[in-house]
Amino acid sequence: MQSAGFLLLCVPLISLLCESSKTPTGEFPESVTARSCRELLKKYGHKKDGLYYLRSKDNEVYQTYCDMSTNGGGWTLVASVHENNIHGSCTVGDRWTSQQGSSSYHPAGDGSWSNKVLFGTAEAATNDDYKNPGYYDIKAKDIAVWHVHNDNELEFWKVASVLRYHTNSNFLTPFGGNLYHFFKKYHLQYGIGTCNDRGISVPIVYDIGSDMRVNELYGESVRADFDTGYVTFRVFNNYQEAYAMCSGVRPKGCYAQYYCIGGGGYFPNTFCSDFAYLNANNGATNGYGASKEIINAAVFIFYR
Amino acid sequence: MQSAGFLLLCVPLISLLCESSKTPTGEFPESVTARSCRELLKKYGHKKDGLYYLRSKDNEVYQTYCDMSTNGGGWTLVASVHENNIHGSCTVGDRWTSQQGSSSYHPAGDGSWSNKVLFGTAEAATNDDYKNPGYYDIKAKDIAVWHVHNDNELEFWKVASVLRYHTNSNFLTPFGGNLYHFFKKYHLQYGIGTCNDRGISVPIVYDIGSDMRVNELYGESVRADFDTGYVTFRVFNNYQEAYAMCSGVRPKGCYAQYYCIGGGGYFPNTFCSDFAYLNANNGATNGYGASKEIINAAVFIFYR
Amino acid sequence: MQSAGFLLLCVPLISLLCESSKTPTGEFPESVTARSCRELLKKYGHKKDGLYYLRSKDNEVYQTYCDMSTNGGGWTLVASVHENNIHGSCTVGDRWTSQQGSSSYHPAGDGSWSNKVLFGTAEAATNDDYKNPGYYDIKAKDIAVWHVHNDNELEFWKVASVLRYHTNSNFLTPFGGNLYHFFKKYHLQYGIGTCNDRGISVPIVYDIGSDMRVNELYGESVRADFDTGYVTFRVFNNYQEAYAMCSGVRPKGCYAQYYCIGGGGYFPNTFCSDFAYLNANNGATNGYGASKEIINAAVFIFYR
Repeated sequence: MQSAGFLLLCVPLISLLCESSKTPTGEFPESVTARSCRELLKKYGHKKDGLYYLRSKDNEVYQTYCDMSTNGGGWTLVASVHENNIHGSCTVGDRWTSQQGSSSYHPAGDGSWSNKVLFGTAEAATNDDYKNPGYYDIKAKDIAVWHVHNDNELEFWKVASVLRYHTNSNFLTPFGGNLYHFFKKYHLQYGIGTCNDRGISVPIVYDIGSDMRVNELYGESVRADFDTGYVTFRVFNNYQEAYAMCSGVRPKGCYAQYYCIGGGGYFPNTFCSDFAYLNANNGATNGYGASKEIINAAVFIFYR
Repeated sequence: MQSAGFLLLCVPLISLLCESSKTPTGEFPESVTARSCRELLKKYGHKKDGLYYLRSKDNEVYQTYCDMSTNGGGWTLVASVHENNIHGSCTVGDRWTSQQGSSSYHPAGDGSWSNKVLFGTAEAATNDDYKNPGYYDIKAKDIAVWHVHNDNELEFWKVASVLRYHTNSNFLTPFGGNLYHFFKKYHLQYGIGTCNDRGISVPIVYDIGSDMRVNELYGESVRADFDTGYVTFRVFNNYQEAYAMCSGVRPKGCYAQYYCIGGGGYFPNTFCSDFAYLNANNGATNGYGASKEIINAAVFIFYR
Repeated sequence: MQSAGFLLLCVPLISLLCESSKTPTGEFPESVTARSCRELLKKYGHKKDGLYYLRSKDNEVYQTYCDMSTNGGGWTLVASVHENNIHGSCTVGDRWTSQQGSSSYHPAGDGSWSNKVLFGTAEAATNDDYKNPGYYDIKAKDIAVWHVHNDNELEFWKVASVLRYHTNSNFLTPFGGNLYHFFKKYHLQYGIGTCNDRGISVPIVYDIGSDMRVNELYGESVRADFDTGYVTFRVFNNYQEAYAMCSGVRPKGCYAQYYCIGGGGYFPNTFCSDFAYLNANNGATNGYGASKEIINAAVFIFYR
């Protein structure tokens, strides 16, 4: 009798409680709930660097890398700008500029900085361009940037970076909380701005590297063209060619092509590629252009 | 004693019942079970437009957009034909024709209309080509088509469409239930048909737009070449060039290149691109070709 | 009272036990746990050929095809080398050589054999290149190879293969357990080796085919250049052009371009494509090059 009574009570109860752990049909299972690495750290206590699954507001589920330790942790990898062929002029793989060649008909390029097109995987971020839903979904305040040598495997990313830094001024907040919204407002397109626009420069805190190190990473002839200790978004050179990002520096002059990356789709006077004209001097630092260390490293972008 | 008795009975029972909610190893979790938006609506009562996860017969799990309201709802977005570079002649991104240039060696093109290759994401369907497993997996009766302006974000797709319509004649049933099977039978290839073949024309019901509106969306000189109020699949022009789809119209004449999209891979006499020669008049509607509104909108294809 | 006592005891217990079946936030649901088809077979008893979900050591979850019957079963499909345009010289889709044209500036090509870049899906493996995380994640001893005619649907792969074989000598073990590690060590690049290097040849066991059949699949003029009954990795021809894999054969001479596939990115003296110069004689077998049967079939690579 007792057993029977128990069963009458217990079985429906168990079913109900177990049932409640199921996700309704049509949704991704509930084990993935955090929208950012910051949430994984703060709300769920995950403190280990590595790969996690996240879920965007629109329920896009994706795997990415979380840096859970630098400066308090909670950094989400959202993008990697990787140059697959430094000699290719906006060919296949130049997703952060254009894959259509340098073309006056395609002056805004592929638009990856301001659209929701996705590519690549976290694990291959040193071998290919990478962009996940976090790029446009996460509401962030700051960014971190890592220059990680191509081919480097995930377990060595952190220690083997050529340069690592982050911002801590909440600069993203007024621009909508991420680079997607920033570039929606500040278009990347040939001819719509001039060198004097100067873009948005944000002071950086070095995690690996220094002002001196940044100078060494670019060519002698170009060092007078910038101040170190900043990251800058959306600038134009003296030919009105548009660039997305200048890592480690703030332009003073008009030679952005030698030290900025990404951008629009038309570069009639310099060179069209994800890494712009960084290779102008074939990686030698006694003239214009960037060092081999910069040219052969993918640029990782994190949000927090 | 009671407690001990309870535990002896309850614990294995609980384990068993909880266990039953687990999916066997090697399968995607059971929270995604519906094969189409129609099933999500009819069987599970989801009535809200938006993104859901579906599962194909072969257990491919994917996220896509469901229109749960138009004409009874249950429409699954399976594809988007997006023109990324109207001046590029079958270059990167022309997945619905060819990414190999216009080539006599590649007369069937990339074959996306009749193979299982996937690309893009639902969320980026106004910025890139999109094709999910539903395209070949769902057994449908009808299609709906939306022309959604490029860059439009998901929440505005429905209201901001240039043109929206659906069929209601079960036309897909005799062709195997979807466009994949249709095009398996009716090949897209240069030179294997003539303008007189006329393809399969299906009457449409407008959800946004009208016969008059369709006329306005194409150039004056080309309006005499078609009847409005239809969607047509697989036609040839006077040069035996193959086109996949003519949206809103039924060809009477032989100038399909000016108002049809997608197709084979060789267009020696006109222009090879996902949007064919719609740009012949640069978007002006006082001659041949299509309007800027058509040229700058992605073509979404839904099944039900 | 009894009921109340039961509830006090039972509810927390049930919650605890049910809770234990949940995956911690940030991880993929636990229903996918096996790292290879071999594990699915041996540990979980799955004996049916078909599509399953696997999970890499780094928690990358992917769907692929398992052959659960040939020679004891447990074979995981990790890659497909598919030629999308036999006339395209390292164009879009030549991911196993280069998509940048044949270029002296890009002598190692796209590097897919030795990096973690992913592409394609299992279901479309006869229509497009395919590479999943298993390629670099699984620790395997042997490989199996299937030549499956393009466009063939999954249910016919096994029976409709032109040629099928496997190795059984544990040859992968000393090279790190998979081809990723093999090619990390043995680079594919123009000019870094000679025809005399000969690569790594491994004896094969035929599942469909024979030595005679392999001979028939290549041209008459090239048969003297190899021994049948092997699969060979990383060879160079007389021009120091690098090839990844020679299927069914072991080179004796120096004409690898006619019967090997994949490789580096620079082929100044022959032809740059995923299928090398297999099409030298347009598929006729009365001279150099390979048969139409080989040219029109994707090459599937399995691990066990």
